[in-house]
Amino acid sequence: MSSTISPLAPKSYPDMPTIRGLRMATAAAGIKYKNRTDVLLMTFDKPASVAGVFTRSKCPSAPVDFCRKNLPAGVARGVVVNSGNANAFTGVKGRAATELTAKSAAAAIGCSEGEIYLASTGVIGEPLDATKFAGVLGDMHDKATGDFWLEAAKAIMTTDTYPKVATRSAKIGDVDVTINGIAKGAGMIAPDMATMLSFVVTDADIEASVLQSLLSAGVEPSFNSVTVDSDTSTSDTLLLFATGAASEDGQQRVVSAEDPRLDGFRAALNDLLKDLALQVVRDGEGARKMVEVTVKGAENDLAAKKIALSIANSPLVKTAVAGEDANWGRIVMAVGKSGEMADRDRLAIWFGDIRVAVNGERDPAYSEEATTAVMQKEDVRVTVDIGLGSGTATVWTCDLTKEYVAINGDYRS
Amino acid sequence: MSSTISPLAPKSYPDMPTIRGLRMATAAAGIKYKNRTDVLLMTFDKPASVAGVFTRSKCPSAPVDFCRKNLPAGVARGVVVNSGNANAFTGVKGRAATELTAKSAAAAIGCSEGEIYLASTGVIGEPLDATKFAGVLGDMHDKATGDFWLEAAKAIMTTDTYPKVATRSAKIGDVDVTINGIAKGAGMIAPDMATMLSFVVTDADIEASVLQSLLSAGVEPSFNSVTVDSDTSTSDTLLLFATGAASEDGQQRVVSAEDPRLDGFRAALNDLLKDLALQVVRDGEGARKMVEVTVKGAENDLAAKKIALSIANSPLVKTAVAGEDANWGRIVMAVGKSGEMADRDRLAIWFGDIRVAVNGERDPAYSEEATTAVMQKEDVRVTVDIGLGSGTATVWTCDLTKEYVAINGDYRS
Repeated sequence: MSSTISPLAPKSYPDMPTIRGLRMATAAAGIKYKNRTDVLLMTFDKPASVAGVFTRSKCPSAPVDFCRKNLPAGVARGVVVNSGNANAFTGVKGRAATELTAKSAAAAIGCSEGEIYLASTGVIGEPLDATKFAGVLGDMHDKATGDFWLEAAKAIMTTDTYPKVATRSAKIGDVDVTINGIAKGAGMIAPDMATMLSFVVTDADIEASVLQSLLSAGVEPSFNSVTVDSDTSTSDTLLLFATGAASEDGQQRVVSAEDPRLDGFRAALNDLLKDLALQVVRDGEGARKMVEVTVKGAENDLAAKKIALSIANSPLVKTAVAGEDANWGRIVMAVGKSGEMADRDRLAIWFGDIRVAVNGERDPAYSEEATTAVMQKEDVRVTVDIGLGSGTATVWTCDLTKEYVAINGDYRS
Repeated sequence: MSSTISPLAPKSYPDMPTIRGLRMATAAAGIKYKNRTDVLLMTFDKPASVAGVFTRSKCPSAPVDFCRKNLPAGVARGVVVNSGNANAFTGVKGRAATELTAKSAAAAIGCSEGEIYLASTGVIGEPLDATKFAGVLGDMHDKATGDFWLEAAKAIMTTDTYPKVATRSAKIGDVDVTINGIAKGAGMIAPDMATMLSFVVTDADIEASVLQSLLSAGVEPSFNSVTVDSDTSTSDTLLLFATGAASEDGQQRVVSAEDPRLDGFRAALNDLLKDLALQVVRDGEGARKMVEVTVKGAENDLAAKKIALSIANSPLVKTAVAGEDANWGRIVMAVGKSGEMADRDRLAIWFGDIRVAVNGERDPAYSEEATTAVMQKEDVRVTVDIGLGSGTATVWTCDLTKEYVAINGDYRS
């Protein structure tokens, strides 16, 4: 948790409604940080459906292994999240820590360990002393309340400079349902996974397999389309829960991903996931600007995304944005290095609405002054037309500043 | 050309012998820089054999296109290199500039345009005014001398803080031959190509196809194993010339890459290429430390190289090195994100000679103090044993400092 809040932080937070069937509590267990909460317990009064997506790292953390093991059963009663220690690359001790935590949480809630989900975030490689919080889970369960979203988001922060929350509502049939989510993440953020950590809960009544299908599709244009530093965490975890409490209002359980009643819910969920993902980018370590990169005219959508990520991950593009320099030559470089089909003489590039390059050279109408004005804004849009096909993709990143180097040159010690 | 010389610069330069059959001259044409040379002419008294490797960018510069067109003939009489402008993404004007330059050089030397090679380095997207130096090539040809290596290396610098030269000798049969080379590059440096620019000349008598075979093999463990910022230039060009002057001493022309007489020459060439490549890394923009990353025990050599580059390109690893922080958790992260086979519980990691992690967790004998001492050195070695197979690879990079951001936040303007 940094003392300086990102200039890209939200100006205000939404009122987060309660989600029937879910209660939460936080505690300060002193895992690494002093004078702040670092443990979150989410407890479901009745078994909730659960879906999840995780890091594609070949070296995942112990909690990621643990969640993957429980996910096929699709039922959740409790979630324990800690910050300050990722419990990653901790070997046998790491597995013992997840087992102790799950056992303590299951005892507090009165459920099986197979209904517990775990996530840890923080330093990699340090043994996690789970006894620090295993003992307080019973007390946390007793005092848990439904109105605790902002506090929950704060308890899972590491280098984040602000808590990340979002809420949406939708109708399933004629029943109103709510979706709330929290996320954390600021560094070690790259696609090919979920995000650092995010937990989304709805009161809708939806079967676990349907939830999984919604989540796997929804993560692609949101969390899998953001990058801070191209570095994929060992701990990325995004869990989606449905408490089913809306059945009390007469919502009929959704048992198929093709159910047309899901249309509004799917749109609301995707919008919430994108909201949270962009909050992560806007809190990118050292970020002063957010960059939206849209690639169109690529051979296909996959090629467009690869080119967009090549641009968004280029240190030279990101430092140019930090320097408010409309250096479109570096965009050309990043297109060229992506390995995807491109023809120099068909490329066109825009900063904001200003076309700076066309037909393989500088736009004849190029104005340094007008372009610089675009670069000085907080949000910078880069658009590239490859001119070959109809593939499109949009990804989001932030600039690369001296503060990123400062933050990461001395995080562990 | 920066006013501050990299702390990793060579402490001294070798005496560069002349290469019979080659003369060089430089000029200050004022392409972008003031008060310095920015054009280099290399001229061969007799037709030289030539080999080349180029950027794999899909958006290569006009000079790269030009060289590729001439290379199949395998004969060189002249090379023109300019700094300050890359003549990349310059469309029809860019092609016209290469044609004017080649025509002027061919007229000065008295050869065909098909025997001219060109390279440009500097800003991308600005039209290159070749008339600025086309007119002086005749004069440069007249005054060219054989003893000009350091000056030649200086004329092609951009953000380099020092000129890069290297020399080796070898025997072919019982005839002594010499290999000299120069290189430039400090940013926009990543494998999958040659380098920014490098020109290597020998007086050996070797057929072009054999030279090409030597060069294509030699570039893999040298220029294709270094990275400053993962960004691949549009202009990367490495040319290798053989003047054949050693035939005057009785060297029989080498016409096969399998010729056993090449053994010593190949070793000397590879050593020189590695020397130049490491000089580029040591001049990485903002670099304060050089990092050698060795991966062993991977599934195969290709997997080892992919993992090594995942580590070497990770902003979080590079900032940790800048902060002298033995943050091996980030090494685990980078292994995990590479996509290659890895088993957390078999990984071992060393900084220098100190094993910091083994069997999926921190080494029991880990000493923060001893490890920090290793991190404080100028050259930092990172070794990772994947523990799965016998694949190995070594790559080189530098740390990521605030100076990198400063240099690249305002390079173009």
